[in-house]
Amino acid sequence: MLSTSRRLLASTASRCLSTSASGAITVNEDLPNVYHVKLNRPTKLNTFTLDMWKELKVVIDGLGEEPKCRSIIVSGEGKSFCAGIDLAAGMSNIINIFKNDDLDIGRKARSLRRILTIIQDSLTSLEKCPKPVIAAVHSHCLGAGIDLITSADIRYASQDVTFSIKEVDIGLAADIGTLNRIQKVVGNDSWTREVCFTARDFGADEALKYGLVSRIFDSQEHLLEKSLEVAALIAAKSPIAVQGTKETLNYARDHSTHDSLNFVKTWNMSQLLSTDLVNSATAALKKEKATYANV
Amino acid sequence: MLSTSRRLLASTASRCLSTSASGAITVNEDLPNVYHVKLNRPTKLNTFTLDMWKELKVVIDGLGEEPKCRSIIVSGEGKSFCAGIDLAAGMSNIINIFKNDDLDIGRKARSLRRILTIIQDSLTSLEKCPKPVIAAVHSHCLGAGIDLITSADIRYASQDVTFSIKEVDIGLAADIGTLNRIQKVVGNDSWTREVCFTARDFGADEALKYGLVSRIFDSQEHLLEKSLEVAALIAAKSPIAVQGTKETLNYARDHSTHDSLNFVKTWNMSQLLSTDLVNSATAALKKEKATYANV
Amino acid sequence: MLSTSRRLLASTASRCLSTSASGAITVNEDLPNVYHVKLNRPTKLNTFTLDMWKELKVVIDGLGEEPKCRSIIVSGEGKSFCAGIDLAAGMSNIINIFKNDDLDIGRKARSLRRILTIIQDSLTSLEKCPKPVIAAVHSHCLGAGIDLITSADIRYASQDVTFSIKEVDIGLAADIGTLNRIQKVVGNDSWTREVCFTARDFGADEALKYGLVSRIFDSQEHLLEKSLEVAALIAAKSPIAVQGTKETLNYARDHSTHDSLNFVKTWNMSQLLSTDLVNSATAALKKEKATYANV
Amino acid sequence: MLSTSRRLLASTASRCLSTSASGAITVNEDLPNVYHVKLNRPTKLNTFTLDMWKELKVVIDGLGEEPKCRSIIVSGEGKSFCAGIDLAAGMSNIINIFKNDDLDIGRKARSLRRILTIIQDSLTSLEKCPKPVIAAVHSHCLGAGIDLITSADIRYASQDVTFSIKEVDIGLAADIGTLNRIQKVVGNDSWTREVCFTARDFGADEALKYGLVSRIFDSQEHLLEKSLEVAALIAAKSPIAVQGTKETLNYARDHSTHDSLNFVKTWNMSQLLSTDLVNSATAALKKEKATYANV
Amino acid sequence: MLSTSRRLLASTASRCLSTSASGAITVNEDLPNVYHVKLNRPTKLNTFTLDMWKELKVVIDGLGEEPKCRSIIVSGEGKSFCAGIDLAAGMSNIINIFKNDDLDIGRKARSLRRILTIIQDSLTSLEKCPKPVIAAVHSHCLGAGIDLITSADIRYASQDVTFSIKEVDIGLAADIGTLNRIQKVVGNDSWTREVCFTARDFGADEALKYGLVSRIFDSQEHLLEKSLEVAALIAAKSPIAVQGTKETLNYARDHSTHDSLNFVKTWNMSQLLSTDLVNSATAALKKEKATYANV
Amino acid sequence: MLSTSRRLLASTASRCLSTSASGAITVNEDLPNVYHVKLNRPTKLNTFTLDMWKELKVVIDGLGEEPKCRSIIVSGEGKSFCAGIDLAAGMSNIINIFKNDDLDIGRKARSLRRILTIIQDSLTSLEKCPKPVIAAVHSHCLGAGIDLITSADIRYASQDVTFSIKEVDIGLAADIGTLNRIQKVVGNDSWTREVCFTARDFGADEALKYGLVSRIFDSQEHLLEKSLEVAALIAAKSPIAVQGTKETLNYARDHSTHDSLNFVKTWNMSQLLSTDLVNSATAALKKEKATYANV
Repeated sequence: MLSTSRRLLASTASRCLSTSASGAITVNEDLPNVYHVKLNRPTKLNTFTLDMWKELKVVIDGLGEEPKCRSIIVSGEGKSFCAGIDLAAGMSNIINIFKNDDLDIGRKARSLRRILTIIQDSLTSLEKCPKPVIAAVHSHCLGAGIDLITSADIRYASQDVTFSIKEVDIGLAADIGTLNRIQKVVGNDSWTREVCFTARDFGADEALKYGLVSRIFDSQEHLLEKSLEVAALIAAKSPIAVQGTKETLNYARDHSTHDSLNFVKTWNMSQLLSTDLVNSATAALKKEKATYANV
Repeated sequence: MLSTSRRLLASTASRCLSTSASGAITVNEDLPNVYHVKLNRPTKLNTFTLDMWKELKVVIDGLGEEPKCRSIIVSGEGKSFCAGIDLAAGMSNIINIFKNDDLDIGRKARSLRRILTIIQDSLTSLEKCPKPVIAAVHSHCLGAGIDLITSADIRYASQDVTFSIKEVDIGLAADIGTLNRIQKVVGNDSWTREVCFTARDFGADEALKYGLVSRIFDSQEHLLEKSLEVAALIAAKSPIAVQGTKETLNYARDHSTHDSLNFVKTWNMSQLLSTDLVNSATAALKKEKATYANV
Repeated sequence: MLSTSRRLLASTASRCLSTSASGAITVNEDLPNVYHVKLNRPTKLNTFTLDMWKELKVVIDGLGEEPKCRSIIVSGEGKSFCAGIDLAAGMSNIINIFKNDDLDIGRKARSLRRILTIIQDSLTSLEKCPKPVIAAVHSHCLGAGIDLITSADIRYASQDVTFSIKEVDIGLAADIGTLNRIQKVVGNDSWTREVCFTARDFGADEALKYGLVSRIFDSQEHLLEKSLEVAALIAAKSPIAVQGTKETLNYARDHSTHDSLNFVKTWNMSQLLSTDLVNSATAALKKEKATYANV
Repeated sequence: MLSTSRRLLASTASRCLSTSASGAITVNEDLPNVYHVKLNRPTKLNTFTLDMWKELKVVIDGLGEEPKCRSIIVSGEGKSFCAGIDLAAGMSNIINIFKNDDLDIGRKARSLRRILTIIQDSLTSLEKCPKPVIAAVHSHCLGAGIDLITSADIRYASQDVTFSIKEVDIGLAADIGTLNRIQKVVGNDSWTREVCFTARDFGADEALKYGLVSRIFDSQEHLLEKSLEVAALIAAKSPIAVQGTKETLNYARDHSTHDSLNFVKTWNMSQLLSTDLVNSATAALKKEKATYANV
Repeated sequence: MLSTSRRLLASTASRCLSTSASGAITVNEDLPNVYHVKLNRPTKLNTFTLDMWKELKVVIDGLGEEPKCRSIIVSGEGKSFCAGIDLAAGMSNIINIFKNDDLDIGRKARSLRRILTIIQDSLTSLEKCPKPVIAAVHSHCLGAGIDLITSADIRYASQDVTFSIKEVDIGLAADIGTLNRIQKVVGNDSWTREVCFTARDFGADEALKYGLVSRIFDSQEHLLEKSLEVAALIAAKSPIAVQGTKETLNYARDHSTHDSLNFVKTWNMSQLLSTDLVNSATAALKKEKATYANV
Repeated sequence: MLSTSRRLLASTASRCLSTSASGAITVNEDLPNVYHVKLNRPTKLNTFTLDMWKELKVVIDGLGEEPKCRSIIVSGEGKSFCAGIDLAAGMSNIINIFKNDDLDIGRKARSLRRILTIIQDSLTSLEKCPKPVIAAVHSHCLGAGIDLITSADIRYASQDVTFSIKEVDIGLAADIGTLNRIQKVVGNDSWTREVCFTARDFGADEALKYGLVSRIFDSQEHLLEKSLEVAALIAAKSPIAVQGTKETLNYARDHSTHDSLNFVKTWNMSQLLSTDLVNSATAALKKEKATYANV
């Protein structure tokens, strides 16, 4: 039990391991140690509102701190994965700033910065979460949907998916994650720029070919089934090993090789001393499956 | 009024503009727009507990979001500014981790990381706060006290102060800020390393000579009087200008000149369009004192 | 009209929106807001001379400042896209330095540095240009040709193209851009190194497979037709959105995710306040096509 | 003679080695190889206009390319060194953007960015100039005056000087260099922030104590005399050595020690092969003064 | 002959150009200037021991300094390329640290750091070696095998290969190179994370599709034949050009475009003055094959 | 006992804890755990030869691995601390490269790079050594002498010292450390550049005033006495704490605050779990002096 240090954190991250306040995000432990987070505004095609972004962060931070959680799937309830921002409810805060005659331009800009910070931090919570996150994407994945999945670790899609980096079509440069992360997940910069500048639709095959997703499945059902399977496979591994792997890959992405070698060496000064190494070796000798304590 | 965007933030940073939950931190608007934050555990020489660190962050984040606040003073109530960590109450969380036989070394290390993150984030809140923070230091400023003041913008001291970067004397490398920031605030690296390796005491004159503080005063009374005077002077300036200045200095410290020139140019694309520039010019022409809206 | 700030710049970038001084570069507005830049030394297979590099920079800088220009195509007139450096005319400046007995080695080296700076700055002008640049490549794209296209945003090729990172075959490490940019545009480092070390030819299919280009077409005619189509599609979008997208992608490529999230947030403090956001929304509601002012 | 590579550059930097176009900047070779650049709008206290910034860049870039120039002094003609921006003429371009009703906020911001780029690039030309620049400062050095001197290599002042980082008093965060460079030239961050936030005046003694200047003299006459003396001393040294030293110090300031060791090692792969090393050794043996070719 | 500077290095890198001390690594000059390094513990599936890592570094450092060596192939003798760490002999040093009751946790961690440093430095020697390294991989390439090949320049495989980033299966985050380098060699981050988190096997086709290797061959024989052919092709090029290319690609991978353009410009200040440029041009004119001195 | 991991390292760093091979460096354990390294070519004013640099690295690396060593003093035997490079013996390797007609310029440059690497690595060994190094400087500290002391942690001087950053006087930009480190140890960049460009002498008072040293003493005897005293004070502290402090200060100097906070948090995940923390606390309670195991 990690109760000692967990209690310390109670006040900073009140864990939400079930449906979020508004119901826009649901959480379920689909399999032991595998949590399924669903965007749950199906009538609105799971478009984001500011509240929904705040709730997403609470959910993901909570799962990051939940010892039982070892891997996470994010999917969308209903007809779409996520069709972007809710142009009415999601943009209203920004529109209110535009219209607020009490604010001069400098102060409007500072207010916009506050909102952008909230939204960026919401999506970055997936990246910072120590547990791997698999985005399982079907049907529509537009605008903010892509901001969301590029902050996940693994991206799978069903054949029916339509992607679009939609932001230029609403008159703005995407500012909550896609443009900051996509080059680091995709291996063809020419293609990346084309789809960012044109906001054109593309499908599963193209996303796979250029590297935005790594697997496609013939149906959403199959997609979810396989996503759960991989999530369960990850959850069965040493969480010390898996979480150290995510931490290191995130670090390596943004630092030189020299710096990231130093980081993992420093990290493993303590993590190699965990019992997981011995458990793994012992189990291997006995031809048994190793089990590991939560982290 | 910034009510629109402020309300958005209500749930993420519940503002504390008076005495904190436990009473360990007090806040008072000493002068218009000038807030005075006091460490307030005088019987314990204002030593830190984990709760006190959490409360400090709530207070500073709250002032960061409070439009009326334009500058902040941090001082210590009673006999000392801050004598470090409360070895009993402040270390108990860490001791509990040490003693927790349910945790192997790898998991103990992860628990320690969580606690260090909370404390580092608490002190970093002073650095991230958009309003300038003046640390007004008297008597004892030891260990965590120095971690605290190196994350402030301006450091003043009274003649009676005793400083010590105390951590090596309790068997650890200082890990909550001093070693990360001191070289960037002080201009003599040889001196810095000597006082870090030896944990020896030093006084106001030495701190001034080597650059840890920028002014010394003959008494705590005088120190607070002058700190308030400077804080009030800052509070009377354009908050668009002052906060952009802090943002830029923080950015410049950690980036190349090339990158920070780009940052301030990008920042001022909006901030130059505020009314503060015109207000200032108009007032100058009229030989009047300009006034500015809050940010 | 942007006349105010444009006039300011008149002396620093005398705009060249038609054929360049020597005629080696031509410019034409093929479609409204879409400019077509052609390498135009067909008898020399569009090989570069030092003058041609200087002219290229003038042309691209000029289009960067031309409000009417919203996207750019770069292609090659005649039989080849670009067969590299003109070994006679293009290398003569360097040969003259080699032969100049008045210069010792240190000073020769400084003279070489000046020339390399001119050439690097020429190619970097495509990267720095706020308008997206599509390189449409046919037939030969050798040596400097690849330096050129890796500094463009989007790379398309016709089936007949032959690429070669030719520099090792003339006894030097490529020093004007290819080696600095290719890993950031291509997703297979093993392949990149092989073609850099061996200078071997490769064709359109291989370039597509490994990510140097993102589309191939069966003929140069088709290539240009589609390049114009995509350029026109980009030109019809909000230039505030498109140019902010390019600025952000360039920034993200060379910075950590954390830093680039901060950049785009700071950039959009002003850019979100443009009318393009409202124009886009209004047009969407009316099911009309939005139009946008130039930038 | 470096005529070969110099001619190449003729079109990019038309050298101005005498009075600039408007007369606002004068240049004189006061001593052999020592050039004296004067701000020359004495009736306006040498306040900057946009044209003057452009002319400064032309002058400094020209001296950077002039082989005979080996060190540079910058001083102010008349009563002041530089009293900042000319609020009428210097701000008019910005005011025109504010007032231009044809521009929405996003486009105003982009126009401001263009102007800030011109001004930043002007001051950065001192930093990029391969020849050392000594700023010799008397009387008023306010606002833009400090932006100017922080981009110089060496700062001397006469006793009568008054400094002020004035920008917050005109409602803006300094955006053309001071905030980006001052922490890297001064060794007391607390003092730096105080003078940046308060815009208060400070004199020569304080500037020396905290590190903004390195020497003070009792009169402007003495200041100029000694500045020339140091400039002449530098001009007598090997220009290969001096310019390599400046290049390396600039690089080291903005990079890690590991990276800058690599840089200087790479730089000296060619520069150690110059004749200056042998010339110096030979002269030392003969107890003569070595002479060196220009660079 | 480079005898002057080579002798200097004799004491720091005692060259091993044949079988290493224990025989675990063999070296042979298969073709002129092409060296073949074999992992040679076939009965142990070429699994690594600490000694073998030390020997690998001696071998690679030696070839880096050997003028005759211009390209290197690394392959595995016998049934496997490399099946990872020798769990008995390779882990014993770490197990001994675990069991050493004289060491507290802090000191155990420091001892682990020493061992990790030795192993990381061993693999990094391939990256730092100025000569290109081709990894020719067959059969098993597990765990440390992948750490090894990601530090090579070029990766080829035979169809029979099985890869696995195995470390999570032994309870640890891979800490000797794979996680630090794989994102920089592969263009699909989603796939990378999946195979890192799951430790699942994958074959040649998948490795090629996602970019871990760049060519696959139907047999090990064919693999080695073609690897030698490419190595020979590289060895026939100017070593000044080839080694400058590797140096630049390594630099570019870990720096911004701006910084790496500066690096290659500085590097070529001397390298362009080599005779290889003239040799290449002369040979081209004569339609002969150029020959080059060793480096 | 650390014998397990120490033995592993035996082959990579054969420890030299007494006089070095040539006798040019001597080592003595002056006080328990305090090692005194002396430059010992008094008849040559301790000027460096290439062999002496190699020996210095062996000595310092050896002390870094020697568990008994907890702090190091570096001083000079005889009349001078260090008068720079031995122009005859120390430059001969470089002169030989100059004169070697078998080498073209490109290959000479590569040979120079090898030598510079050896020398830089020698001096960097002081920085990388986990034990604090105090440079105790008397009489002459010229050229390479300053390269040496800027890579130490603490710099003390006797009143009689003469410093000079001498390199420009021998026709080269200092390339073995001074220019890369001096700005990070000194807080007045204007002064730094003046003494680098002019190679002028300066004394103890000036070095103290501008921050190159942190203490001056009236005689060399007093200097050594006090250096030993401080070294002994450091040696009595927890080596886990002291060495973690050095590691963190080195890291912080070259990274952003954000990155270095992450580093120290990761480092202390294991180091806080050492017994030194408890030992320190227990001793404090008992009012005894804590003792600590070696590292």
